[in-house]
Amino acid sequence: MLGNFADRLCEAIRDRGTPTCVGFDPVYERLPADIRDRHENQRERTPAAEVDAILEFGGGVISAVAGLVPVMKINIAFFEVYGGHGFDAYSQLVEKAREGGLLVIGDVKRADIGHSTAAYARGQLAGDARADAVTVSPYLGLDGLRPFLDVCRDQGKGIFSLVQTSNEAARDVQDVKLESGETVAAHVGRLVNDWAGDAALMGDCGYSALGAVVSPRDVAGADTLRSILSRCLFLVPGYGAQGQSAERVRHCFKEDGSGAIVNSSRGVIYAFDNDRYTAAAETGWQHCVTAACRDFIDDINGVLNR
Amino acid sequence: MLGNFADRLCEAIRDRGTPTCVGFDPVYERLPADIRDRHENQRERTPAAEVDAILEFGGGVISAVAGLVPVMKINIAFFEVYGGHGFDAYSQLVEKAREGGLLVIGDVKRADIGHSTAAYARGQLAGDARADAVTVSPYLGLDGLRPFLDVCRDQGKGIFSLVQTSNEAARDVQDVKLESGETVAAHVGRLVNDWAGDAALMGDCGYSALGAVVSPRDVAGADTLRSILSRCLFLVPGYGAQGQSAERVRHCFKEDGSGAIVNSSRGVIYAFDNDRYTAAAETGWQHCVTAACRDFIDDINGVLNR
Repeated sequence: MLGNFADRLCEAIRDRGTPTCVGFDPVYERLPADIRDRHENQRERTPAAEVDAILEFGGGVISAVAGLVPVMKINIAFFEVYGGHGFDAYSQLVEKAREGGLLVIGDVKRADIGHSTAAYARGQLAGDARADAVTVSPYLGLDGLRPFLDVCRDQGKGIFSLVQTSNEAARDVQDVKLESGETVAAHVGRLVNDWAGDAALMGDCGYSALGAVVSPRDVAGADTLRSILSRCLFLVPGYGAQGQSAERVRHCFKEDGSGAIVNSSRGVIYAFDNDRYTAAAETGWQHCVTAACRDFIDDINGVLNR
Repeated sequence: MLGNFADRLCEAIRDRGTPTCVGFDPVYERLPADIRDRHENQRERTPAAEVDAILEFGGGVISAVAGLVPVMKINIAFFEVYGGHGFDAYSQLVEKAREGGLLVIGDVKRADIGHSTAAYARGQLAGDARADAVTVSPYLGLDGLRPFLDVCRDQGKGIFSLVQTSNEAARDVQDVKLESGETVAAHVGRLVNDWAGDAALMGDCGYSALGAVVSPRDVAGADTLRSILSRCLFLVPGYGAQGQSAERVRHCFKEDGSGAIVNSSRGVIYAFDNDRYTAAAETGWQHCVTAACRDFIDDINGVLNR
C-alpha cells in the first residue's frame, strides 16, 4: 500500500523543490501543428486520430515536465468528449504520468450519493492504475465524498474538494453571505476541514489526504480560507492564463511555505504558441514547454523564498 | 432540430399520462441471476462480461417500461466504473432507450468552467446520439452551466441543475441559512430560475429547458422551492427505496399537476427481488419490472388526480 497521500505529496514537493503542478487540458486545435499534421496525414481527421494526437502530445508534455514538477493534473472533460476511446486514453495518460514519476490528480469534479458515488470512487480513484487523487464537488455534503475517503484511507489516495473556484460567476453561489457572516465558500471550507480531521486521513506532515481547491479571489479571502482549512493542502487553480499572480497565490500557503500546490495549465502546455519562447521552439515544442515550466516554477518559488 | 426540451418533456408526460421516470442504476451483483449465470458461464466473470450483462439487463428494463413511462434516467457512474468499455455501454443504452421512445436523462452531475465545461457539454449532451438532458452541479455558478445551455438552445436538449438533493448529509451545505433568511438551496433555486428565464430556453408549455433536481425533504421546503422555481421542471429523486412518499412528492408539482417528474430507480428495476412481485416473477423478471412500474405510476398518478 502507498503511504498517506498528503505525506506523499509533501515529499514530492520537497523532492522537486517546488509546490507546482502542470495541468493538462488538451484542446485538439491547439496541439503543435506537426503532431496534428502527422496524424491527419496518416488518415483523415477522425475522432480516433484526434485522440491519438492528444496521447502523443500528452506523452511529450509528461517528458518535458516530469523532472521538474511534482504533480500533473489531467482534466478528464477533454477526454470524455471522445467517448469510451477518450476515456481509455485518459487512463493511459494517468498511468504514463505516474510511470514518469509524477503524482497525478484526476480533475474529474465528481460527486453523487450512495451507490453512485461509490461507483465513481471505484472507477476514478481505486486501484494502482488510477490517479493518486481526484477533485470532487461538495454540494451533496459528506455523503458525496465518503466512498472517496474510504479509498483515501485504504489505498493511500487523496481528494481535493472544490471550495472556492477561479471563475467570476462562482461568486453568485460561493461568495453569498450566511447568517453567521461568513461566505458559503468559508462555510464549505469549515466542513471540509472538519471532515479532513479524521485521524486515518491525517499524514505525518500535518495535512490530510482530503485537500481543497481554493482560488484566491482576493488577499483577505485567501487568508481567511487558509486559516479555516488548517488541515488541508490547497490545489490552487487560476495562475497564469486565468490571471492570478504569484503574489496573490502566496496567500494560499502557510507562513512556513507549506500547504499548497499551484497549478498552471495553458501557460505551460501551449508555450510553443507564446512569442516569449520562440527561441526554444527552434529545437522542438517540448523545449518551449520545459522553458515555460521553469519560468512558472521560478515565479512561484520566488514569492515563497522571500 | 428537436423542439424545446421542456415542450418535448411535457408532451411525453401527456402522451403517457404520467409524470414518472424510471432510473437505471445497475449494480452487477443485483442483476437477475439468470442473466449473470449466462454471462459468467460463457466465459469467466470479467469486467467485459459484467458490462455485457448490464447491457442485456438494460435492454430488458427498457422493453419493460418503454410503453409506460415518458422518461428514463441513466446514471453514468455505474458505467464509468468499467472504464472506456463501460462508457461506450452507457452511450449504447442511451441510444437504445431513445429508440424505444423514451426521453433519456443522463445522470452525470457534471460541471466545470471554461473550455472544460464546454467539453463536457459536447461529450455528454450535444448530438443526436446523446441524452435528451443531463444533470449538472451548480456550485461553480452560471459558468459551469453555460455551454450546456448553448446546447439546450441550439439542439432542443435540457439540463437539470442540482438544487436540493435527497441525502441527509446534504443539509450541511444546502440547508444552511443565508443572511437573507433563506437557505442555500433556496438561493441556488432562485439563481437557477433566473438563468432558466432566458427566452431562448422557455418552451410554449411555460417551462424552461433548464430544470432542477429537487427532493422534497419536508412539505414546507418543497412548497417554497416550487414557488421560487416557477419556470423550472423538477426532477424529483428519492421516491421509493430512498423513502419519499407520493404524498410528499405531490408538493413538487404545481396546483394544475404540472411541473415535475418523479424518479424511481431501485424500487422498479430490482422488483424481481421484491416478495410483492413473486407471482409476476414466474413469467420472467421483466414482468416484475413492468408490474412495479405500474404500481409506481398508480401511486404517483393517484395523488395528482385527487
